[in-house]
Amino acid sequence: MTPGAALLLADLTGVAIFAASGASAAVAKRLDLFGVVFVGFVAALGGGIFRDLVIDEAPPLAFADWRYAVTAAVTAVAVFWLHPQLARLRTTVLVLDAAGLGLFTVTGTLTALRAGLPPVGACVIGMLTGIGGGLGRDLLTGEIPVVLRREIYAVAALAGAVAVVGLDRAGLAGPGPLTLAALFVFVVRLVALRRRWSAPVAAERSARDPLPDRSGPDEA
Amino acid sequence: MTPGAALLLADLTGVAIFAASGASAAVAKRLDLFGVVFVGFVAALGGGIFRDLVIDEAPPLAFADWRYAVTAAVTAVAVFWLHPQLARLRTTVLVLDAAGLGLFTVTGTLTALRAGLPPVGACVIGMLTGIGGGLGRDLLTGEIPVVLRREIYAVAALAGAVAVVGLDRAGLAGPGPLTLAALFVFVVRLVALRRRWSAPVAAERSARDPLPDRSGPDEA
Amino acid sequence: MTPGAALLLADLTGVAIFAASGASAAVAKRLDLFGVVFVGFVAALGGGIFRDLVIDEAPPLAFADWRYAVTAAVTAVAVFWLHPQLARLRTTVLVLDAAGLGLFTVTGTLTALRAGLPPVGACVIGMLTGIGGGLGRDLLTGEIPVVLRREIYAVAALAGAVAVVGLDRAGLAGPGPLTLAALFVFVVRLVALRRRWSAPVAAERSARDPLPDRSGPDEA
Repeated sequence: MTPGAALLLADLTGVAIFAASGASAAVAKRLDLFGVVFVGFVAALGGGIFRDLVIDEAPPLAFADWRYAVTAAVTAVAVFWLHPQLARLRTTVLVLDAAGLGLFTVTGTLTALRAGLPPVGACVIGMLTGIGGGLGRDLLTGEIPVVLRREIYAVAALAGAVAVVGLDRAGLAGPGPLTLAALFVFVVRLVALRRRWSAPVAAERSARDPLPDRSGPDEA
Repeated sequence: MTPGAALLLADLTGVAIFAASGASAAVAKRLDLFGVVFVGFVAALGGGIFRDLVIDEAPPLAFADWRYAVTAAVTAVAVFWLHPQLARLRTTVLVLDAAGLGLFTVTGTLTALRAGLPPVGACVIGMLTGIGGGLGRDLLTGEIPVVLRREIYAVAALAGAVAVVGLDRAGLAGPGPLTLAALFVFVVRLVALRRRWSAPVAAERSARDPLPDRSGPDEA
Repeated sequence: MTPGAALLLADLTGVAIFAASGASAAVAKRLDLFGVVFVGFVAALGGGIFRDLVIDEAPPLAFADWRYAVTAAVTAVAVFWLHPQLARLRTTVLVLDAAGLGLFTVTGTLTALRAGLPPVGACVIGMLTGIGGGLGRDLLTGEIPVVLRREIYAVAALAGAVAVVGLDRAGLAGPGPLTLAALFVFVVRLVALRRRWSAPVAAERSARDPLPDRSGPDEA
């Protein structure tokens, strides 16, 4: 397999995985078939569309290559019909989501570097490619975005993006090391989930509800 | 009238219609004059701005041609002053919204094809141009986006976009057939509203609230 | 100091100020360290990224120049550790936010004019650069966006953008007049806050809750 084909395969695998996560969230919200497909589409392709807009790759791959949209749509429809089984496989979904995070972070960082972005920019873009789809999914379904919750999620992606930039600088950005970087994000995310690792929260100031709905800080 | 002038007229008509829908939603939320204008602006121009970013038309028409911003702003201000009358004309607003959906889907798909996008990408862009403004309007005003509700909305736009691509491929993308495509979207949306057609929803799994506010699927 | 260096300094000052506002809002929502940094990043850089996408400046400055991302991140981390003191300095935060609004409106309008946008487009872009970060911050933290509330905020930015376009047309866009334009936005916003100025709201139609949560106008 050529490097280009490997990157495409990794990308489409990530698309299917995130489409499944978005579609599952939409089914849980009782959205209709189109809503499920739409949220799946945003979750699968939102991060990559943002990345391509930023690096001025026009039109974005998600629109230029029909395999992206079709992969996302077919996966979402499949989840719509199969969701009772998936519900019983919740752990599997979380594992797949972590795998997608790893894949997209690595392909996103690489794409940004190839487009000539400097290291800090490429790290941020790579991280956003990884977490962007979940962000869109959560905004659409009225959730507090997963990246803002008290879990290790984006930090794992950022660490992976930094690793990819480091490998690229060292001339080691071959398939093996890059696969290891994706695996690293995957494992860190899974271990964090299992051990309930979380980032620090600022010291308590009052006894109020942790995430008051629609009330501003100024009104407390 | 030249084809270019006809496309501009269709576009500006769609802008006015969607600005009215956004402004009406903002008035209903008790936003102030500026908020009403802002939501009207996003509803009228959001879909087209996204389309132009994706096809690398820079700057987007909404910023390059002052008639777009002015049409949206004037319409929103008019709704702000006239809203008690509009409230009694709710059916009219729904009819206009369906007309805007048809217009924007057709102009968006055509613009994407002219910019060289492949068929699947042009269909998705055309649909997003049609539904994008309403999506922005609903995110801003804290609604579950209309495209995610149990109604035929985006599906009508998608069908219209597919029709436009088909007409274009067949060399029939003249004013007459394109107007028919816009009318098709318009009529499907109206009939769906009147007959309460809706897309299928996944089979029931529990008796819980259909759209629980701010609670994740994992917490149920 | 060269004009370019002055513009960069003004921009980075605005970045730090808006990062502090975003981080403070995130701390108040009890987000973790990464969430605080992420919201700070979006608040500080969101408006400028949107501006650069629209004027086809690729990649956006926020990704091309590492000083932007680092300034935002360092400020957000500082707020995370220092927030109890900041909470007692709430007035200071509001003053800084108004200063950032003035700075970003002026630099955003200038950047759009330099990129060749026509006057109306440059005004809208300048205003959106000023208010965009706060909009992203509020969408992420589940707030009704500040620009949609009953306060003079975006109107002040729009007036400042119009002033910058006027100065540019008159050949007077030097450091002195531009600083005055930023000061003008700053002072209008502060006076509006102090005197509780607000834009008009549409006439009352019923006694219902001003901003009903997640309920559409059609359901009332």
